[in-house]
Amino acid sequence: MFRFWKRANWKYTILGGGKRMDNAGYNTGSFDGLHQVSDDDDDDDDEMVDIAGATLDFSNTDDDPPLNSGGYEEHSPGRGMNGVGGPTAMMDPLEDPVPGVGTYEDFNTIDWVREKSKDRDRHREITSKSKESMEALLHRISDAFSGWLLMLLVGLMSGALAGGIDISAHWLTDMKEGVCLNGFWFNHEHCCWTSNETTFQERDKCPHWKSWAELIVGTGEGGFAYVVNYMMFMFWALLFSFLAVTLVKSFAPYACGSGIPEIKTILSGFIIRGYLGKWTLIVKTITLVLAVSSGLSLGKEGPLVHVACCCANILCHLFTKYRKNEAKRREVLSAAAAVGVSVAFGAPIGGVLFSLEEVSYYFPLKTLWRSFFAALVAAFTLRSINPFGNSRLVLFYVEFHAPWHLLELGPFILLGIFGGLWGALFIRANIAWCRRRKTTLLGHYPIVEVLVVAGVTALVSFPNSYTRMSGAELIKELFNDCSLLDSSQLCRYKQDTNTTAGTSVGNGLADRPADSGLYTALWQLSLALLFKMGITVVTFGMKVPSGLFIPSMAVGAIAGRLLGVGMEQLAYYNHDWDIFRGWCTPGADCITPGLYAMVGAAACLGGVTRMTVSLVVIMFELTGGLEYIVPLMAATMTSKWVADAFGREGIYEAHIRLNGYPFLEPKEEFEHKSLAVDVMRPRRADPALAVLTQEGMTVEEAEALVASTRYSGFPVVVSQESQQLVGFVLRRDLLISIDNARQRQEGVVSSSQVLFTEHLPAQAAEAPPPVRLRSLLDLSPFTVADHTPMDITVDIFRKLGLRQCLVTHNGRLLGIITKKDILKHMAQMANRDPDSILFN
Amino acid sequence: MFRFWKRANWKYTILGGGKRMDNAGYNTGSFDGLHQVSDDDDDDDDEMVDIAGATLDFSNTDDDPPLNSGGYEEHSPGRGMNGVGGPTAMMDPLEDPVPGVGTYEDFNTIDWVREKSKDRDRHREITSKSKESMEALLHRISDAFSGWLLMLLVGLMSGALAGGIDISAHWLTDMKEGVCLNGFWFNHEHCCWTSNETTFQERDKCPHWKSWAELIVGTGEGGFAYVVNYMMFMFWALLFSFLAVTLVKSFAPYACGSGIPEIKTILSGFIIRGYLGKWTLIVKTITLVLAVSSGLSLGKEGPLVHVACCCANILCHLFTKYRKNEAKRREVLSAAAAVGVSVAFGAPIGGVLFSLEEVSYYFPLKTLWRSFFAALVAAFTLRSINPFGNSRLVLFYVEFHAPWHLLELGPFILLGIFGGLWGALFIRANIAWCRRRKTTLLGHYPIVEVLVVAGVTALVSFPNSYTRMSGAELIKELFNDCSLLDSSQLCRYKQDTNTTAGTSVGNGLADRPADSGLYTALWQLSLALLFKMGITVVTFGMKVPSGLFIPSMAVGAIAGRLLGVGMEQLAYYNHDWDIFRGWCTPGADCITPGLYAMVGAAACLGGVTRMTVSLVVIMFELTGGLEYIVPLMAATMTSKWVADAFGREGIYEAHIRLNGYPFLEPKEEFEHKSLAVDVMRPRRADPALAVLTQEGMTVEEAEALVASTRYSGFPVVVSQESQQLVGFVLRRDLLISIDNARQRQEGVVSSSQVLFTEHLPAQAAEAPPPVRLRSLLDLSPFTVADHTPMDITVDIFRKLGLRQCLVTHNGRLLGIITKKDILKHMAQMANRDPDSILFN
Repeated sequence: MFRFWKRANWKYTILGGGKRMDNAGYNTGSFDGLHQVSDDDDDDDDEMVDIAGATLDFSNTDDDPPLNSGGYEEHSPGRGMNGVGGPTAMMDPLEDPVPGVGTYEDFNTIDWVREKSKDRDRHREITSKSKESMEALLHRISDAFSGWLLMLLVGLMSGALAGGIDISAHWLTDMKEGVCLNGFWFNHEHCCWTSNETTFQERDKCPHWKSWAELIVGTGEGGFAYVVNYMMFMFWALLFSFLAVTLVKSFAPYACGSGIPEIKTILSGFIIRGYLGKWTLIVKTITLVLAVSSGLSLGKEGPLVHVACCCANILCHLFTKYRKNEAKRREVLSAAAAVGVSVAFGAPIGGVLFSLEEVSYYFPLKTLWRSFFAALVAAFTLRSINPFGNSRLVLFYVEFHAPWHLLELGPFILLGIFGGLWGALFIRANIAWCRRRKTTLLGHYPIVEVLVVAGVTALVSFPNSYTRMSGAELIKELFNDCSLLDSSQLCRYKQDTNTTAGTSVGNGLADRPADSGLYTALWQLSLALLFKMGITVVTFGMKVPSGLFIPSMAVGAIAGRLLGVGMEQLAYYNHDWDIFRGWCTPGADCITPGLYAMVGAAACLGGVTRMTVSLVVIMFELTGGLEYIVPLMAATMTSKWVADAFGREGIYEAHIRLNGYPFLEPKEEFEHKSLAVDVMRPRRADPALAVLTQEGMTVEEAEALVASTRYSGFPVVVSQESQQLVGFVLRRDLLISIDNARQRQEGVVSSSQVLFTEHLPAQAAEAPPPVRLRSLLDLSPFTVADHTPMDITVDIFRKLGLRQCLVTHNGRLLGIITKKDILKHMAQMANRDPDSILFN
Repeated sequence: MFRFWKRANWKYTILGGGKRMDNAGYNTGSFDGLHQVSDDDDDDDDEMVDIAGATLDFSNTDDDPPLNSGGYEEHSPGRGMNGVGGPTAMMDPLEDPVPGVGTYEDFNTIDWVREKSKDRDRHREITSKSKESMEALLHRISDAFSGWLLMLLVGLMSGALAGGIDISAHWLTDMKEGVCLNGFWFNHEHCCWTSNETTFQERDKCPHWKSWAELIVGTGEGGFAYVVNYMMFMFWALLFSFLAVTLVKSFAPYACGSGIPEIKTILSGFIIRGYLGKWTLIVKTITLVLAVSSGLSLGKEGPLVHVACCCANILCHLFTKYRKNEAKRREVLSAAAAVGVSVAFGAPIGGVLFSLEEVSYYFPLKTLWRSFFAALVAAFTLRSINPFGNSRLVLFYVEFHAPWHLLELGPFILLGIFGGLWGALFIRANIAWCRRRKTTLLGHYPIVEVLVVAGVTALVSFPNSYTRMSGAELIKELFNDCSLLDSSQLCRYKQDTNTTAGTSVGNGLADRPADSGLYTALWQLSLALLFKMGITVVTFGMKVPSGLFIPSMAVGAIAGRLLGVGMEQLAYYNHDWDIFRGWCTPGADCITPGLYAMVGAAACLGGVTRMTVSLVVIMFELTGGLEYIVPLMAATMTSKWVADAFGREGIYEAHIRLNGYPFLEPKEEFEHKSLAVDVMRPRRADPALAVLTQEGMTVEEAEALVASTRYSGFPVVVSQESQQLVGFVLRRDLLISIDNARQRQEGVVSSSQVLFTEHLPAQAAEAPPPVRLRSLLDLSPFTVADHTPMDITVDIFRKLGLRQCLVTHNGRLLGIITKKDILKHMAQMANRDPDSILFN
């Protein structure tokens, strides 16, 4: 019994242990270039793959240089290699790794264990070398700090880009209404800053700023001027959206959508080449500005996360540590997601929690700290750019001071219920629409679709001032707490001259009866609510960059403001009711409609995305007051529970499932009673598992086995009879090595033996020399017993990030479970189509 | 090959799958009551175990009812059971679990996989039942919300206790100086609130409040009165500390120390019975007040975490879901740790991050959300109690408004270096002192030790006003930003009448030259710094509740304030230097010494505990300004890096190691190149692994094997020759079942066969009936191949929370690795004594 491990241990000492792994143990890539086979037994080849609602041709995205230069290219130099020019070094376990080994194919899942192990080896090597020379010590130190430097760069670059996007979008949005005579590059506010003729009441009106009607027909008044403005508004909206969709379609199909579903999938260990590349970054940045400016019902917050991740991925190429390791790079991307939210909402802590709660898969503590650093750097960069001119990072930053009463929790929970219902409804409707886009002709005319939606949006939104303004401006208006001098239509209260004005405290105003102007505003808001609810469903998922945060928040904010004003008026006219008595006397400032808007925004966003802690913290950072956490929490909790009752998936998970990505949801428990035997392949009716034996197979037999199957790897057993597991070998490695041996090693013919053993068995003298492949073996494949419950197996897959796991019974090999098998099993258990899981 | 799994699957269907596991699969407890053997092969029996620096006798803590009623008792009813009265149901896999099965011994590690699996089974059962009746549906709903209800209760109870502790400690601290004539239960501030005779300058002087000298000798002035006050101060300090240490020693030895190291260990899956029990809670709450009031150099923040965890553990008993499941209970405890910090610092978000970063081991997202909820409830409860009368949750809450300049990062980083050096030095000195306490006679006289330290502390601290005041008051004083009317000695600046007073902005004051009063204060502060640095080393780890946050922060705040005032004066007298020019002109308010104090406090706390994100967020919540995050982060980062250069352990990890707890640090990477074969037992020279065979062993042989070893479980193999692994059986289960069979089953004698197979082998007709034990088998034990690198194995142990793992080679069993083996191996690799790991 002990002969085995003694010898094994001895071998380990000879080979230098850790190093061996790089060459042989942990290679799980596939070598499709050689024999044109897919990774799996399904017919994935030549299939059309739909990413973020856009139907893409595999070969196209893979070969078109601009799309593919997104960074994964550099470290797969072996891709173009064929059997003839194969590497010669595969046979020697002490040599450096062959180029191309250890990389992954596009649309494949990485092996987290291997990647992390590779990084530990690298680190170990640097540490041991650092004791030898000063230079190596410096290398070690620079290596240790490269992570921080990278974070700094990511923060600076993302902050700068976000500032640029904010400024440009502001300018282009104003461009739809008019132009500045002082210089067309000024936006409306900027144009009027220097004007002396601006009065306090009409600070947005200044002589330098001309509406299109004023420029074209010479007057801003009258029906004709209105029509001209209307036309120009529609023209610009259509132009911007046309430019956006054309750019996306021609140069970077991956730039469309919000990007968060794909980033979640990538962070869970999937590879989508070019998704975070420089072309995607450039095109997404430009088209995001255009899409936001076109007035479509979309926001820039989700796409900003994508932009930050692109920055991080590109900057990773500066550092070997991150360029060469998929797991390390994903740590950086997790931090970048935090950066994205940090600049989108000016909420660094909320951003980190968003990354932790919503996006990330593997989030070690080191990443937490670095994310926080990067998020802060980005926030300060953005603040120094100061895109809104008020040293705030977002347009709708607000500081409330008014207290709230415990009884108000009732309406807040009502808002939570509304948010949950809206979230559940939105997800269903949007997914149904996106599925229709995928399956019908609609998907083939993305430009037409965008132009129609943009046209309808512009047509409907111009007459209503609350839809005409941008989403962020609308939210700002709705969050706003009315002060005495406020000229907004939402603050048209009757000036009660004979009330006890002295009792109002702070900067809050006593509750007052609504004026007719306010009622008009409420009608407009109700129409805007209905319109936004409808148009957002068809907008999200179109072939332009489109975030969901702002439209969701806008819907909630409108609903909240309506309820808030309603409550205010109810309390004003019925202050003698029991529920108002004691805290809402006449003349007191008891209800803040702006707070209701904020709570409603949080509830709707929570219902759609199912964010919880991060959402509350983001809102907390937007208001800066701990007091409002309780209303916000009550609303988001209610919203999540209500929405979960209709379906447990948030919008991002729903889109992941729609696109068939291999994403093993870390939040959801595996609820079924299956065992590993029920999920593994081969199934009962299938032929036996394809295995290699450690000795006794000829080259011809091995090649035949590989050619007759589509698996990406093969278990190696002691003998067909015993089925005792020795190790696991990858198809790609096996093919490279056999071809190499045929070319380089003398006397190797089809009848040569393939040997995975350490010792040479006794052979007839005239037999051809064997091909020795032990160095290819992964000697520590993960195994589970056949009786292991699937909930434990799923836990192992999730926590360790496995790609496959072998199933044994009493030490004898029975079958194999891959991530795809698990996802298919889960789909089947949930009565969904198991073939909707497209990727491995 | 397929016969195996087909049959296995069929059996699974019959038994109902998930249910089987409860009875047989996952029992890893040991059954020491039966045969008096320890869990391990080391001589741990009758050993003295040192918890938190207090030497305890095992048998004593285990049998003394008050100490042991801490909650783990209820669900181990099988503890007193012996072989004779053993359960009869073990043989039938369809019966309910036998009482006692599935619980753990004291000082043992839980099996996370089993506990989580148990909970999933429970959940599955409730879900499937809920479709049957309305009652079951209600049960399901109440079950789903019980977690939230529990969190609410934990928040309320911890918040209330924290408020009580704050108020009592404040009162007793003032008691050392005098008493209120209106009622002895008023503290100084409260006593003087109602007084009309208090002037603005001397608001703490009022006729109702009498110092002890005024009461005893009739006058507060003169040398004699000073001596009387001195004596009374010392008397109260000694009395309080005597009461504290006596209570701890007599009633709850576990109440001493900060509790965080033990809570970390418990959360990682260790069991210390009674550590979170109600006696510990009561005694810790009382003695914490006494210890803080006695003037010892300790804080209440760490112990508050322990108090909150005790509350959570006790409240868990109200809910079956949490009472019966060690993993679920640990989720609640993680949230309780967040609650503790939330009430200690008034920082709910910081508390959650503290729990996530510093304390917790297994922190799923659901726990994040619930922790946040509980932390908020606790903060609001505390706020409604309002212990400081200013609606703040901590004494040293501060709102800065002064800006800081980029050049000030220099001194901030200096403070970081100081904090790091002090942290490293403190950890070394404190651990050396605690080791001395454990190994020398010192440890046998805890009361004398506490009295001596308290006496010295009182003796030295009375003359110096900065040491006489409590730690929190000192920090408040140091954080304070001087305003014009401030009467504090630290604000004695020369009133420059002819300066350009008009240029000072906001509520900040222009920099001014220091007065002699300020210089005196600085001298006193320097002495206080030296004293605090020394006395804290011997205080932390004494047999009273003692937190480390406040003393560490005090040291840092003093250092920071000294540097801040130094910088201020330097800038005032040298404002024409290049570095000051442009931002620190005369008359400008450019340097805020209070900010330096805050940065210094963060740096020192960071150096000692190695907290990072949570520390910055706590400080952010204390100041409420995002602007100071950059200085705080620069200082804590520097501090952590400097301290890490001297040793990577924080004070809590160092104490965990000192006490030999089995804690697998999740933050530290395993850096060595070992393979699983190098770590597993049996080692090369040892006898072969003790295994059972699935058939062919007699009852006598099995009993002999168990009696001759100390292992807590045995692998079961197909045959001694093949060593093919079938499953894993626990010593405890095996002994119970064999004894039970001998008692109940007819004809079972010593020569009966023990069978782990499903089928009955052919037997001679006259042979005694076999004992069938297949239901005991864990059919899915975790296995790794012998060549698996240890870094991967350690990762598996950490992420899955394993207790043991079997090692195989080509499907044949080679050995076993336990958590203790890994910790011993790691200790050996780090040149430490592997026998310092005491527990399993």
